[in-house]
Amino acid sequence: MKVRRSERLVAITHYLEQRPYQLVPLTFFAQKYNSAKSSISEDITIIKRAFLNSHLGVVETLPGAGGGVLFTPGIDHQTAESYLFDLKALLADPKRILPGGYLYLSDMLGNPATLKKIGQLIATQYAGQKIDAIMTMATKGIPIAHSVAYYLNVPFVIVRRESKVTEGPTLSVNYASDSSNYVEKMELSKRSLSLGSRVLAVDDFMKGGGTVSGMQNLVQEFEGQLIGVTVLVEAKSPNDDLTKKMTTSLLNVQDLTTSSQVINVSMGNYLQRTDFARFETKD
Amino acid sequence: MKVRRSERLVAITHYLEQRPYQLVPLTFFAQKYNSAKSSISEDITIIKRAFLNSHLGVVETLPGAGGGVLFTPGIDHQTAESYLFDLKALLADPKRILPGGYLYLSDMLGNPATLKKIGQLIATQYAGQKIDAIMTMATKGIPIAHSVAYYLNVPFVIVRRESKVTEGPTLSVNYASDSSNYVEKMELSKRSLSLGSRVLAVDDFMKGGGTVSGMQNLVQEFEGQLIGVTVLVEAKSPNDDLTKKMTTSLLNVQDLTTSSQVINVSMGNYLQRTDFARFETKD
Repeated sequence: MKVRRSERLVAITHYLEQRPYQLVPLTFFAQKYNSAKSSISEDITIIKRAFLNSHLGVVETLPGAGGGVLFTPGIDHQTAESYLFDLKALLADPKRILPGGYLYLSDMLGNPATLKKIGQLIATQYAGQKIDAIMTMATKGIPIAHSVAYYLNVPFVIVRRESKVTEGPTLSVNYASDSSNYVEKMELSKRSLSLGSRVLAVDDFMKGGGTVSGMQNLVQEFEGQLIGVTVLVEAKSPNDDLTKKMTTSLLNVQDLTTSSQVINVSMGNYLQRTDFARFETKD
Repeated sequence: MKVRRSERLVAITHYLEQRPYQLVPLTFFAQKYNSAKSSISEDITIIKRAFLNSHLGVVETLPGAGGGVLFTPGIDHQTAESYLFDLKALLADPKRILPGGYLYLSDMLGNPATLKKIGQLIATQYAGQKIDAIMTMATKGIPIAHSVAYYLNVPFVIVRRESKVTEGPTLSVNYASDSSNYVEKMELSKRSLSLGSRVLAVDDFMKGGGTVSGMQNLVQEFEGQLIGVTVLVEAKSPNDDLTKKMTTSLLNVQDLTTSSQVINVSMGNYLQRTDFARFETKD
C-alpha cells in the first residue's frame, strides 16, 4: 500500500529521531512506504528544515552508493542556554545541601525530562566526534551516561568502587577519592570496554577531579583514550592541570558548606566549550 | 510566520513523542505554529493514524476546556514479540555464564537501543495505570528504570545496599538476599519518594525474589503500594506466592550452572500478562 506524504513525514520523523548517527539509505524508506525515491527525497527536504527550525538537530543526505540520511541530534545556543537556566534554577534550592559539602541531586537524576536536557547538552558538545563508549562512575552518573549514550548512539560502561559477582573479570586502578582523603579502588569489567576505545567520561558531581584522574588511568589500562569529561556540577576545580583542561561543567557551585543558607550556582564553562554553529537555524 | 502543514506534522510528531502522558492543548500548537485550531485538528488526525500504523502508541484528543492531545506510548503484540526474540537471541550466548549461576548482562544494559526495547515493553504492560514512581535496585536495574520512566513519564528512585553521603536521611529494611544466604539491608533516601506513592518495581535479574520482597517492605515503610514488578530475566521463580503473583518476566533462564555449555532461554510470562488491544493497528 502506497503511503501518503503526510503519513510518511510522521513515520520518517519518528524513525530518524529514534536512530541518531545511523545512516539510513533512501531506498529503505522508498521500499518501506512503497514510494518513489524522488518522493522520499522531497520528504527529507521538508524534514531537514523542520528539524532545524524545531532545534532537534541536523538531518543530512550523504550521496553515493553507500549514502543515505543521517540524523545528528543537537541543540542551538539559545536552547542550550535555556536548558542551563532550567538546571540552574533546580539546583539553587538550599535544601539540597547535605553534611560534608555535598548536594542532594537524586531527584534531578531520577527525572526523565531533566535527564533529557542534560543528555542533549552533552551530546551537542561532542556531536560528530568519534566516540566508542561513554564511561561513568556508579551510581548517580549512570542516568547521565545513559542519556548521553542515547543521543550519541554509543554504549555506556559503568565503573564501580567494588566489583560484583555479575561482572566477570575486571581491571582496576587506585585513585585519590574526591569524597574522602583515602586512596580508593575503581574497577571496570574487562569485557565491557574494547581495547583502544575512545572514551567520553560523564559524571554528576566533581569535587577536585580525583575520580576523573582515576578514570583516565583506567582508560589507559584498556589502551584507550579519554577524549573529554563533562560533569553536571563542579564544586571544586580539578587540582591537576591536565584534568582541568579537559573538563567541562554545565554548572558550578561555590563555597558549599553545611551552614550555607543559599547555594551559589553559576554557569560552568559549557557554553564556551561548545560549537553550536551547525545547529543554528538559518533564515 | 505561518508554518506549512508538512512542517507542522514533523514538529508536532517530535513534540508529542518527547512528552508521553502529557496533555497538550490544541491552542498551544495553534499559537506555536500560527495556524487555525481546525488545521491543527486535521494535523492530529493524520498523526493519530501514522502513530498507530508505525506502532508508536496511541494519540488521543480529549475534548472540553481542560482537553487537548495526549500521547500514550505502546507497542502492539507483534512488535513486542519481535523485541522479545531480539532480547532472547542476545541472552542465549553461553559466554554470559559467570561463576555462581550469574549472567553477564552489562553489555545489554549499556546499549541504548536494547534499553529502549526493554523500556517500551514494560511501559506497554503498565500503559494508562496510575504510577507515581519506578523503583529499582542499584546498579544494573538503573538503566531499565530510566528507560521505563521515560516512556511512562514518571520519576525513578534507586534503592541501595548501603546509603551514600549524597542521599541525606534514609529509610531502610532488611531482606533475604537472592545472591547470598544472608539477610541484607536496603535503603532509600527519604526525600526521594513521597508518602503514599504507587510504585512499579523493575530489575534486571531475579533469583528467588528476595529483593522484590524487600522492595515491597520498603514501599510499605513509605506508606505506598507496590503495583507490579517486571524483571528482564527470571532465573528462579519467587519462593513467596504473593511475589510470584505480581512478578512479570520478559525472559526466563533455567538450570544455570557454571558448567553449562548452553543457556536455556525461554519467554517469560510477559505476553500473557500484557493487554495490547489499544495499540493494535485497525485496518
